[in-house]
Amino acid sequence: MAEEITEQVEREDDGYGLDNRTVAAVRLAVAAGDGPRLGALLEPLHAADIADLLEQMDSGHRREILLLDPSHVDGEVLSELDDSIREEVIEFLPRNVLADAVRDLESDDVVDLVEDLEEPQQAAILDALEDADRVAVEQALSYPEYSAGRLMQREVVAAPEHWNVGDAIDYLRSNKKKLPEEFYHIIVVDPRMKPVGYVTLGKLLSTKRSVPLTGILEDSFRAIPVTQPESEVAYAFNQYHLISAPVVDDEGRLVGMITIDDAMIVLDEEHEEDIMRLAGVGEGSLSDRVIETTKRRFPWLFVNLITAILASLVIAQFEATIAQFVALAVLMPIVASMGGNAGTQSLTVAVRAIATKDLTGSNVWRVVRREALVGLVNGSIFALVMGVIGILWFGTPMLGVVIGVAMVVNLVIAGLAGILVPVALDRFGVDPALASGAFVTTVTDVVGFFAFLGLAAVLLL
Amino acid sequence: MAEEITEQVEREDDGYGLDNRTVAAVRLAVAAGDGPRLGALLEPLHAADIADLLEQMDSGHRREILLLDPSHVDGEVLSELDDSIREEVIEFLPRNVLADAVRDLESDDVVDLVEDLEEPQQAAILDALEDADRVAVEQALSYPEYSAGRLMQREVVAAPEHWNVGDAIDYLRSNKKKLPEEFYHIIVVDPRMKPVGYVTLGKLLSTKRSVPLTGILEDSFRAIPVTQPESEVAYAFNQYHLISAPVVDDEGRLVGMITIDDAMIVLDEEHEEDIMRLAGVGEGSLSDRVIETTKRRFPWLFVNLITAILASLVIAQFEATIAQFVALAVLMPIVASMGGNAGTQSLTVAVRAIATKDLTGSNVWRVVRREALVGLVNGSIFALVMGVIGILWFGTPMLGVVIGVAMVVNLVIAGLAGILVPVALDRFGVDPALASGAFVTTVTDVVGFFAFLGLAAVLLL
Repeated sequence: MAEEITEQVEREDDGYGLDNRTVAAVRLAVAAGDGPRLGALLEPLHAADIADLLEQMDSGHRREILLLDPSHVDGEVLSELDDSIREEVIEFLPRNVLADAVRDLESDDVVDLVEDLEEPQQAAILDALEDADRVAVEQALSYPEYSAGRLMQREVVAAPEHWNVGDAIDYLRSNKKKLPEEFYHIIVVDPRMKPVGYVTLGKLLSTKRSVPLTGILEDSFRAIPVTQPESEVAYAFNQYHLISAPVVDDEGRLVGMITIDDAMIVLDEEHEEDIMRLAGVGEGSLSDRVIETTKRRFPWLFVNLITAILASLVIAQFEATIAQFVALAVLMPIVASMGGNAGTQSLTVAVRAIATKDLTGSNVWRVVRREALVGLVNGSIFALVMGVIGILWFGTPMLGVVIGVAMVVNLVIAGLAGILVPVALDRFGVDPALASGAFVTTVTDVVGFFAFLGLAAVLLL
Repeated sequence: MAEEITEQVEREDDGYGLDNRTVAAVRLAVAAGDGPRLGALLEPLHAADIADLLEQMDSGHRREILLLDPSHVDGEVLSELDDSIREEVIEFLPRNVLADAVRDLESDDVVDLVEDLEEPQQAAILDALEDADRVAVEQALSYPEYSAGRLMQREVVAAPEHWNVGDAIDYLRSNKKKLPEEFYHIIVVDPRMKPVGYVTLGKLLSTKRSVPLTGILEDSFRAIPVTQPESEVAYAFNQYHLISAPVVDDEGRLVGMITIDDAMIVLDEEHEEDIMRLAGVGEGSLSDRVIETTKRRFPWLFVNLITAILASLVIAQFEATIAQFVALAVLMPIVASMGGNAGTQSLTVAVRAIATKDLTGSNVWRVVRREALVGLVNGSIFALVMGVIGILWFGTPMLGVVIGVAMVVNLVIAGLAGILVPVALDRFGVDPALASGAFVTTVTDVVGFFAFLGLAAVLLL
């Protein structure tokens, strides 16, 4: 039986991540209430994979795992969990297990863990921390949400600018206890603690003792203000290939550092958010409950309903025309659908180009002209295709002309709206990924139906 | 005049990246043919920003910049350029400038530069390299495209597993010349050159000389096969928070290493590709020419045309019904549009969940059930809303019932198709981001029109 299930869910697992075989085995162990077997299965897994495993279970199985083997749900697993599941797990875990889990984490991981929690859960975790750690976490939480201050680690290795390589190496070798768990750079600071650059440990080890630190500073140095939004931080790391960067306060003094692995997580989240917003899904994940998902998707569908009704109102103006010529009702969705698709193409390119700062005030008109041209060329080709289809299908040459012209008009408008709507939203400070879709679809629907039915009213009757 | 233009294009530039003021100043310098001024403007810019600047210019301005100040378009700038612009620039640059530019790059950057070039341009660059570098580049190019072998750097620092911390530090300090430009880890290998783990330089510096290297290995060690697809590599770095990982050949021997900054670039590209594919845009960028963009978007619009015609064929079955009841034509697009949107919501969530390995064989049925329920709840609410609107607008209660029932059916089907289509495509080895949209829209359009018009034919006539 066990083998059968394993066989059934198996797929090609040459990559990384959780494999289905393990998930199936965990399910069996849980069903059998076999704690030791469950422990043995979880033992070799990375915290991120255990978190994925918990997310894939339903709520009942998740609790059974926590009851059978709470020891494998440690602080790192909690860090990796999706928000909604994390809250559930924290609520369910016994206080002492939770306290142990959190005490093992670095202070920036604790910040990441508690910042999205509700007040009482946050307090429960902060109480479990030692005084020094709690102060550090509370200080980090005093910075704005999604700022560099929340992202940074406070533990840094700094060296005065008058030191040479030998001084730095001696300092590191004789202060082993004080060094952070992971570090790759030494930040060189002036007497007022302002960073002037950084030196990689590799460069330090491969340079003569007598060379001053200021002689081997990296080119890519950039100091990040502590209130900088994390999306800008991720952009800077990606654009300038930074490995780490010092974080400075309002007076330019060193207060922490951000490393590329933190920036990579932010970049990943920003992308995910853009994709979800473009699709009208909002935040959230597969593991959210039905009611949450329904609530989150409802507003987008509601906005869509309004735009669809607007389109219907346009159609309603031409009821008499349609009544005389039902073929129009048959072909209508083609014009709307082509316009909607072309609009989505343009707006997606525009939204991404705005996010990567490739679409700016200086090239927007060139891009607009290009999109209009692309719409004109593709529109003309499809006008020809649909014109012929219209004639062959309904035997009315004028109907071919009507749908052909409507197609060109709609694809050009789709290209223009696809660029101008996100650019305008960005100017007004609205996230273009969030709202462009509804506006562009409204434009293409209204223009498409109006062009098609209006032309038909003039030319066919 | 200059100030006026600068003022006009200025926006809040508190972030990173190219600012519009600089772009405007560069345009002025180019227009004035002022090479020294151009050089002074480009000098402080990062290579990535110079590349963005070149991409934002039109082809004519780009050439003028290359003529006025070729010295600032170095190898790093070439690496940062979009493919299509890069080809243009390489064609235009004098051979000797190109040769200088490429000789400054590390061999893995040269691989990145040449792998997308046409044969003759590739040869021109390879010829400019010194023999040892050319062999290294050619060897890298022998690995499959988008594999770990293309991504890795060949320069690694390895240490035998019997060394202690003191041995490693002494080795590094006495072999300064042989060390790579940047490294953060020492890879510990067995006598057959198989990696057994790695030690961070930070740990090395903060540990006593007598401790064996095998005692301070990092937990997160994972060796990557040289033929592993780069998307899997990026997933592993993101999932397990790796900073670097050794790359091994078929026999498990060390051949290179991949660092997190390379993985971040791949992750960024993979995301971008997913977004573009979901929107039916394919690859490409803002800087592509009109004809390329038109060609790239055409196939997607063509597929959309086919699906739209399928929907039209369904409508055509009900011409008689519509002729008697034109209100149906008015309301038709609402049902289709709501179904299409709900389908896009589900499919986007599914596509992302497949990419992040959160949607697997083990939870697919639970997710399908959830999506159907979400569709049922939202569908019922909108059924009510539209039912009322239908009655008030057209004064026919039965019309309200028809559109209400059609709405529920369509939103449930949208939720089901939104999950099942991408999952099925993934099983058959087709990228779900690429093809799901067309299939799901076809399903929601066909089902939506059929349910709405079919019910109308039964209930209204």
